[in-house]
Amino acid sequence: MIRGGLVRIRLDLGYDGTDFAGWARQPGRRTVEGVLSEALATALRLSPAPRLTVAGRTDAGVHARGQVAHVDLPDVPPVDPADLGHRLRGLLPADVRVRSVRFAPSGFDARFAAVLRRYVYRVCDDPSGVDPLRRRDVLWHRRRLDLDAMNAAAAGLIGEHDFAAYCRPREGASTVRRLDQLTWARDRDDDGVLEATVCADAFCHNQVRAIVGALVAVGEGRRPVSWPATVLVAGVRDPAVTVVPAHGLTLVEVTYPPDGQLAARVHSARQKRSFAASTDTGQPANDAWG
Amino acid sequence: MIRGGLVRIRLDLGYDGTDFAGWARQPGRRTVEGVLSEALATALRLSPAPRLTVAGRTDAGVHARGQVAHVDLPDVPPVDPADLGHRLRGLLPADVRVRSVRFAPSGFDARFAAVLRRYVYRVCDDPSGVDPLRRRDVLWHRRRLDLDAMNAAAAGLIGEHDFAAYCRPREGASTVRRLDQLTWARDRDDDGVLEATVCADAFCHNQVRAIVGALVAVGEGRRPVSWPATVLVAGVRDPAVTVVPAHGLTLVEVTYPPDGQLAARVHSARQKRSFAASTDTGQPANDAWG
Repeated sequence: MIRGGLVRIRLDLGYDGTDFAGWARQPGRRTVEGVLSEALATALRLSPAPRLTVAGRTDAGVHARGQVAHVDLPDVPPVDPADLGHRLRGLLPADVRVRSVRFAPSGFDARFAAVLRRYVYRVCDDPSGVDPLRRRDVLWHRRRLDLDAMNAAAAGLIGEHDFAAYCRPREGASTVRRLDQLTWARDRDDDGVLEATVCADAFCHNQVRAIVGALVAVGEGRRPVSWPATVLVAGVRDPAVTVVPAHGLTLVEVTYPPDGQLAARVHSARQKRSFAASTDTGQPANDAWG
Repeated sequence: MIRGGLVRIRLDLGYDGTDFAGWARQPGRRTVEGVLSEALATALRLSPAPRLTVAGRTDAGVHARGQVAHVDLPDVPPVDPADLGHRLRGLLPADVRVRSVRFAPSGFDARFAAVLRRYVYRVCDDPSGVDPLRRRDVLWHRRRLDLDAMNAAAAGLIGEHDFAAYCRPREGASTVRRLDQLTWARDRDDDGVLEATVCADAFCHNQVRAIVGALVAVGEGRRPVSWPATVLVAGVRDPAVTVVPAHGLTLVEVTYPPDGQLAARVHSARQKRSFAASTDTGQPANDAWG
């Protein structure tokens, strides 16, 4: 129980973002948060529907396999996570799946306690097109891509940098992020699919899709290997960088510290974000990470 | 050129079977053959639309990654396979992908020259459900499945047998088939997905889905490991065998002999099939292999 008779519940979930206007609740639009909070309201007879806090505020069309959210629920009558999970599964549509429902450990915050977010972006460069069964989460690119060139260019972006050149700017918001991994690999199925794995402490809006756009330009030979790092150093949004479409992007994993370190992590993350207005507190759905 | 100014073209294709009433053309229904032959007719200004011959006549809802078909086209003006492929890609919907278009070697027949057909069937036994991005080609099973028990039971079906117990019977049709592989493995992604790989020279109607149904009954502990082989030996359709839903099934590969052996293979396959009325010459869409 956290306070005032509320108990914090952690939800792990996945969704097919195709038919959602992103994560964040918006009046009159089908969003993941909206569908999930309505299901919670129905399952627990709550009114108004509870608000959720999420690790990655995905944009319209972006998918998730390992999304994490929390919700504070009245604990009278006592919340039974297993039973709640079962009821949610009966209420949710096929494009949202609640993988687990459990009590959040003390100090847990789905957004501020997260230490690492991992996304994948999938592109198919087979001239014949994308496997129809994967067309919802794989972008088709009509020119062949040079994997080695893309990996060489990606290496120049690793580390803590001001990613202003790859973010939609927002007044007063910090665009410094620590990029831990950015690697491309061909899918084992040899179906022309290249997968970028991108890990960072957090992401600015559009950051992954802008970085992937710059690397794709290198992969097809339009830009030299050094170009993405040159753009980074310039530090201003470069109109030559194309933001690739949302549907190739999936949030696959969010990592939290051990339970004993949650509170300290939340404290430091909140301080960092409040230093300048956060990039991810706004209301519009397209204000999402990733 | 094969005869009468016709040239035989081999098409390799994949499709998401979700929104198709199967492969075989049927009046008033959306089928893969129908969509493809209409696209061929448009691309080449043919009327009536050409008929196709296919390696695996998939049922409604069954998918394909490695389907093979052939079509005989007038060679005046000369057919350019690369150009035809390009035009087809511009005409076909996103749920059908033509992977390649080429001249068929002498003696080639997509159906009768095939020596091996490989299907996969995917089941997810995670109690929380199927990853929404995979829900179109993965069946959800609400009870946990014992992989080792399913593999042990599968071993009892390998080899050449009369599979009458696992086929929808048809007057005068042989139900003898040679099952070369039937193995289950857990998906590397550890997302609760089990994949059955099933290879045979050919399949009777519903054979894969009935075999998978019997093995799933073993996997969840409802039947002993010996049961699927016992059913096989009994030789009659057993109502206790559940035919699992179509959407978990995908035709992944069709194998042909080296070009020099195509004609001999077609000859022997035709003889075998005409020995008794074939199981796969009928008109209804649900008459498909797999």
